[in-house]
Amino acid sequence: MAKVKLASISTKAPRNIDKEKTKAKTEKILVELDELQNLLIAEAKNALLVVIQGMDASGKDGAIRDVFGSLNPMGVSVKSFKAPTAEELSHDFLWRIHEAAPAKGMIKIFNRSHYEDVLITRVHGWCDDATAQKRMKAINDMEELLTQHNNTQILKFYLHISPKEQQERLQERTHDPRKMWKYNENDFAEAKLWKKYMGYYDECFNTCNKVPWHIIPSDQNWYKEYLIASKVYDTLKKLKMQYPGLKK
Amino acid sequence: MAKVKLASISTKAPRNIDKEKTKAKTEKILVELDELQNLLIAEAKNALLVVIQGMDASGKDGAIRDVFGSLNPMGVSVKSFKAPTAEELSHDFLWRIHEAAPAKGMIKIFNRSHYEDVLITRVHGWCDDATAQKRMKAINDMEELLTQHNNTQILKFYLHISPKEQQERLQERTHDPRKMWKYNENDFAEAKLWKKYMGYYDECFNTCNKVPWHIIPSDQNWYKEYLIASKVYDTLKKLKMQYPGLKK
Repeated sequence: MAKVKLASISTKAPRNIDKEKTKAKTEKILVELDELQNLLIAEAKNALLVVIQGMDASGKDGAIRDVFGSLNPMGVSVKSFKAPTAEELSHDFLWRIHEAAPAKGMIKIFNRSHYEDVLITRVHGWCDDATAQKRMKAINDMEELLTQHNNTQILKFYLHISPKEQQERLQERTHDPRKMWKYNENDFAEAKLWKKYMGYYDECFNTCNKVPWHIIPSDQNWYKEYLIASKVYDTLKKLKMQYPGLKK
Repeated sequence: MAKVKLASISTKAPRNIDKEKTKAKTEKILVELDELQNLLIAEAKNALLVVIQGMDASGKDGAIRDVFGSLNPMGVSVKSFKAPTAEELSHDFLWRIHEAAPAKGMIKIFNRSHYEDVLITRVHGWCDDATAQKRMKAINDMEELLTQHNNTQILKFYLHISPKEQQERLQERTHDPRKMWKYNENDFAEAKLWKKYMGYYDECFNTCNKVPWHIIPSDQNWYKEYLIASKVYDTLKKLKMQYPGLKK
């Protein structure tokens, strides 16, 4: 498998892709996702775990709202991983992850994830290289456990934006009243660590790739939403789900 | 306050209410709910707890899908209460309820709830009258705690259908392939206990009314959805929420 290197992947939609046609396609996919989710719930044989990673302001929240916002809330839930609590820190780093894994029939979205334990932690020197290697091995094992022992389909998305796009979006948060609540003064300092982040992300993609990563060019939201919705659709469609008959 | 008696309340929409106009109104409310939810998340000062109770096939799942299905999944989650697990039974009956209460900024929907502990349990004789009285006192106290100590708005809905409507819906589950997965052979036996249920429901409504109950005529889904959406809208609107400015 060719090595992933973020710096060589475009953050933009290809020029020949039509915005309005793509948005129409996404709308159509979202309608069909509704029925696929209904089957997922009814069959209760498979689970879907969607892992969303990306730098600050890469559009994680928006992707969740716009791709998963029309599904039945009974069958989808979002877990946003923040800095671990004292109790979480008194366990292994996958303890809180495992607890949040989706049950059969359910779609669970991780807004950030176990990958932060080999990303932000490395960037700030809270996790050394040897520990990071051990963690990535454990992550692969955990993803295998979920896949093989609970029929969990795992989709991992990296929302790929350019540093320039990030700066624009962070600036917007300082003066758009509807976005100010998202502003965190720390984000600008964190943005300066861009290259370090990219290096550790690259390593993640190449080491934790038993379940493949999808690098989503995300400078344009409509393209990002289309790609994510398509992957979710393809994944659920492949399950060839059917409504179960009457329980005897 | 006048005593609630379900038997004297219609399960149908008033005859002079126009179905299409009402559906259009609901659509409009749902669009506005989206913005109100965004404010709820941004402010993170208030929480909303929606308790949905009703007999089998009264349309609880559908109400959740159709009223809350277009909200941002990052800010809404559903907790379906089933028969308690062994671990839950080794705690007080409100232990699992409290754990599932919404955080500030969040909307939590209870699909069934703590009220089952004074409903199904009484119908089947697993909970005697004296215990039920003590439980209802504890429920009132818990609802007061959530309301006064976490700014939780609590909306309690009873989806009111007629026994005839219920029979039709249960029958449908035995022959509609898209609904068979919901069929439970036990439902028909449970339906025979209708009058007992109504009596205990009436008692709940009159005893646990510090936070008022909304009895929702639910034989027609469009009317049910309109009433629930309206109440949610009114409740959030009254909070006069505003986007917070920049954190200093």
